Parts: sequence; C-alpha cells; structure tokens
Amino acid sequence: MSKLVIVGTVAFDAIETPFGKTDKILGGAATFIGLAASYFNVDTAAVSIVGGDFPQEYLDLLSDRNIDISGIEIVKEGKTFFWSGRYHNDMNTRDTLVTELNTLADFNPKVPENYKDAGVVMLGNLHPLVQSSVLDQMSVKPKLVILDTMNFWMDCALDDLLNVIKRVDVITINDEEARQLTGEYSLLVAARKIHKMGPKYVVIKKGEHGALLFHNDHVFYAPALPLEEVFDPTGAGDTFAGGFAGYIAKTDDTSFENMKNAVIYGSTLASFCVEKFGTQRMQNLPSKEVHKRLLQFKQLTQFDIELG
Amino acid sequence: MSKLVIVGTVAFDAIETPFGKTDKILGGAATFIGLAASYFNVDTAAVSIVGGDFPQEYLDLLSDRNIDISGIEIVKEGKTFFWSGRYHNDMNTRDTLVTELNTLADFNPKVPENYKDAGVVMLGNLHPLVQSSVLDQMSVKPKLVILDTMNFWMDCALDDLLNVIKRVDVITINDEEARQLTGEYSLLVAARKIHKMGPKYVVIKKGEHGALLFHNDHVFYAPALPLEEVFDPTGAGDTFAGGFAGYIAKTDDTSFENMKNAVIYGSTLASFCVEKFGTQRMQNLPSKEVHKRLLQFKQLTQFDIELG
Repeated sequence: MSKLVIVGTVAFDAIETPFGKTDKILGGAATFIGLAASYFNVDTAAVSIVGGDFPQEYLDLLSDRNIDISGIEIVKEGKTFFWSGRYHNDMNTRDTLVTELNTLADFNPKVPENYKDAGVVMLGNLHPLVQSSVLDQMSVKPKLVILDTMNFWMDCALDDLLNVIKRVDVITINDEEARQLTGEYSLLVAARKIHKMGPKYVVIKKGEHGALLFHNDHVFYAPALPLEEVFDPTGAGDTFAGGFAGYIAKTDDTSFENMKNAVIYGSTLASFCVEKFGTQRMQNLPSKEVHKRLLQFKQLTQFDIELG
Repeated sequence: MSKLVIVGTVAFDAIETPFGKTDKILGGAATFIGLAASYFNVDTAAVSIVGGDFPQEYLDLLSDRNIDISGIEIVKEGKTFFWSGRYHNDMNTRDTLVTELNTLADFNPKVPENYKDAGVVMLGNLHPLVQSSVLDQMSVKPKLVILDTMNFWMDCALDDLLNVIKRVDVITINDEEARQLTGEYSLLVAARKIHKMGPKYVVIKKGEHGALLFHNDHVFYAPALPLEEVFDPTGAGDTFAGGFAGYIAKTDDTSFENMKNAVIYGSTLASFCVEKFGTQRMQNLPSKEVHKRLLQFKQLTQFDIELG
C-alpha cells in the first residue's frame, strides 16, 4: 500500500440538469477524487484551499472518509471557489454559467510533511504551474504521478502544461482534449503523440462511451456501464481518476495488467457518481454494491471465442 | 450450419472522404453484408436488383465468394441504384450528395426456391414493406431473422417499419436511430422499449464507440478496435451485420453467449472494412489477419479482477 496525495479544488458547485437544480453544494476535483479513492482505505491527503464560507460539515465529511485535510488551507477572509453549470438535454454537453476563482486565484499548495514521501500523487485539474509545484515538494520520487487536465489550460497555459506533462507517468484526458492537444483525430495516434510528451500511460476518457488505456503498443478499452439514467455527470471524470489512483495506491502495482483493473474500478465508481447530484452517491458507497457492479462490468465485456 | 438469405441493395457508390474520392464503385447493403458473411463459408444467397449498367465483374466478385446471385434481378433497360456521399473531417458524419433509386424503386424481391427454408434471414436496410415481403416468402419459419434499418424509414414509413420490426428476432440500429425510434436518450431504456416492439435481441451500433447487444436484462458491450486511420466508413454497419449473421448461420447457435461472439466477429470484420475505399478490403480477407485481430479484441477488453 502506498500513501496518496491529491491536489485539486475543493469547491461549491451549483448544477442544473434536466432533472432539477441545486443550490451551492459540495464539489471540486479533490473532493470527488478523494471520495472515490477513500473507497480503498489508503492513507490519503487532500491538498487544496477554501474560504471562510466553507462549512465545517463539508470538511468533516472528508475527514470522516479518513482523508487527511491538514493540507486544505482555510482563508478565513476569503471565499471558496465556485462553479455553476447547466447540462443540456443529452447530458454530454454543458454550459458554464459562473466561475468565481476566489481563494483559488492565490492557491499555493502545501503538501503535509508526512505525505512528502507518498508513493502515488494525483494532480487534479488546476493550473499546470500549481500542479508542478506539488511535484517540487515531494521528498522522494513518487512511484506514480497521475495528472488530469482540461482544454482550458491548452488554450491559455500550453507551455506550462507541456512542462508538467513531461513529469507525469499517467495522464487522464477526455477524447476531445486529446485531439486538441495533439491535432490528431485518431485516438490511437493521439495517444502515441502524448506518450512522446512524457506520460508512459495515457487514459482517454470518453464519457458514456467508456475509457481507453494506452501504454506503448498495448491498448485496453473499458466501456461505460449502460445506465438507466444519468442524473448529474458532474465529477464523473474526477471520480474515475480517484478510483484509478486509489486502486493503484492500494495494490502498489503499476503493471499494465493492474492498471486495467484500476480503469475498471475507476469506471465502476464513476457509474455511481452520476446517479445523484454532486457527491451524494459517493459519500457512502457500500462495497457490496461496488462488487455487484464490478460483476456487471465483467458480464458486460467478457466473451469466450475459441481462437484455434 | 444454416443457410443464409440476405436482402438489400447492390449498388454503385461514389464516396468522398478527407483522404480522396472515388468514381462509381461497388457498394450496397447486400454487397457488404454478403462479403462479410462469406468469410464463414455458409450457403448464402443475395436477393437484390440491379440495372443493365451493372458490370459482370462485380457480379462475378460476389459469385467468387460463393454467394448465390440467382436472386439478384437484372433489369436490362434499367439503371443500378446509385448513392453518393461526402464524409466530414471527423468521419462520423456525412452528407448525401446523390440518391438515384433507379431500378430499386420497383424492387420486388424474389427469394430463390432453394433458399426459402434458410435458417437465417438478414434483412438489409430497405423499405420495410420490401423487408416484410421477403419474410412472407419463407416456407419454413427461420431460426433467426435480423433486421437493419435507418432513420429515413422512421420519418416516412414508421407504421410499415413497426410492422416488420414485430416479425424479427434481432434488430441492428445505430444509437441516434434507437433514440429516435423510442424517444429515450438512455440506450438501456431505448433497448427495453425496442424489445417490447418485438425483437428479443437489440444491437445498438455506436460506430467508433463499438456496439451494444441487449437481451432482456443481459447487456454486452463490444468496443470498436481503436484504429490508426478510418479511411472510409461506408459499409461498416452492413459489414458488422454480415459478420454477425454469417457467424450465427455457421454456428447455428442463437444463445446469448454465442451472439456475443457474433458481435465480436461483426466488429472485427467492420474494423477491416473501413481501412480502404468501398469493398476493397473485404474482397479477400485472409483468415490469418482476422484471427490476429480477434486476438487484439480479446487483449483490448479482457481483464481479471478477483471478486472475492
């Protein structure tokens, strides 16, 4: 088992979907990643920043899941990062209604002393310079560094992004972003180009179409479980990443075979995340239900052709 | 082994993709279905219609693949169905430039006498009344009837379409069409509604995202093999259906487990189809290459999580 450091936003989200809308609720990349990773009971620290308006009960909710929150800075006079978005009817596209950076604008992450030797580092979506500064603080080279990012940084901080990409082992990115980053339509060719930028492992997230894991000439495709209803996709990508990182930290095995399982766990946890608003479904996920869904994943994908 | 009857267009296609364009080349649903099915060496008859302008060499090409073409009517004074389309840069969307029905407008399919007891019937995309008339001609109830259709018939012949859908065991349809047919966004819910329309098995094709097979509460998801380059998607859906139908006819086994394999074979053959213009890649597919790709499919999808 390895220790896991997560850096990312801890935030307020306000969400509108065809099924309803929420006031400000708990959100943020580090929140979703942390809750997903907590399923694996690994020593986890979240590094983030919030304002004085952030409710103690939300912090308690993370602590209760055994997430070390000593690295979450509280700026008493500041306000918490706030994002608001509205999903279209297909739930695959959304408009951002509000982005208030607030305290996040001056976020200077500090990795807790006892996590500077963590084996797994999960860099949630943030400015690439902030992601880099976390790596600078590690006293021992981590076994695995995972980076999540988005098109926004490709548009406005590409050089910084390319610099941090060089330093990571795994990148998780969605299909459109992989295409934007490489200028290649074929995801196979795009992944190959991203390998050359640094990451030995490339995970391309395709939402309802699943996720692909690339490592040199190896490819693994985990479909998404077909769901009755997608209630709120917010945090699904982060939940996927958190499941992936948590499973690797727990098993301490970075082989391709084991990463396939990490992708399956990530997909499984993400399939729960979208069933309710925000973090609601992820706050307490019985392992019995997770097991049941893993079994469904097996049934969904496994076949037996004799290949003479 | 069962005999296989295929009904569908045998046509001229003219195709433009970002990689180039063709003059009138061999195309049509029955052509692609037949070539794919011929991989399995089952007794196959194609039922279609062409004009006097249709080259003997194209008919020979089908005969050479052991496809019985006695059910392909040749209207000497008529012209062959012609379709022309242009693919967009993403290769997922296309504009139809020309559709000339020609002899297809009066197509009255005739199943050859010795195929009226065929075990498997594959109804390629055509007017639903034409598809129905093929079923009317069968002297023995087929073990499996597979129907392919498209949104065009939902728009302009919905009642006829619903009538033929009632009579089939398997429907193959793409994701957007499944949504249009049912008014449901979730493919799981859409498949459930289509079950109620008649077909016990629903195959939803998602192009580069693979294909889903539904049967009551069972779901199987075959991803598409990530490809270096999609050169020409024309006929991929028909090739999928032909591989599916051919495999079922060969194995004579309509269990869900075996249909999963049929979906994998369909996906595998379709992955070849898109590598060259038109039928070029499908005219002679060495079984060695197919085997190699089936193995890739296994590696792409199989994982081994211990589920305690």
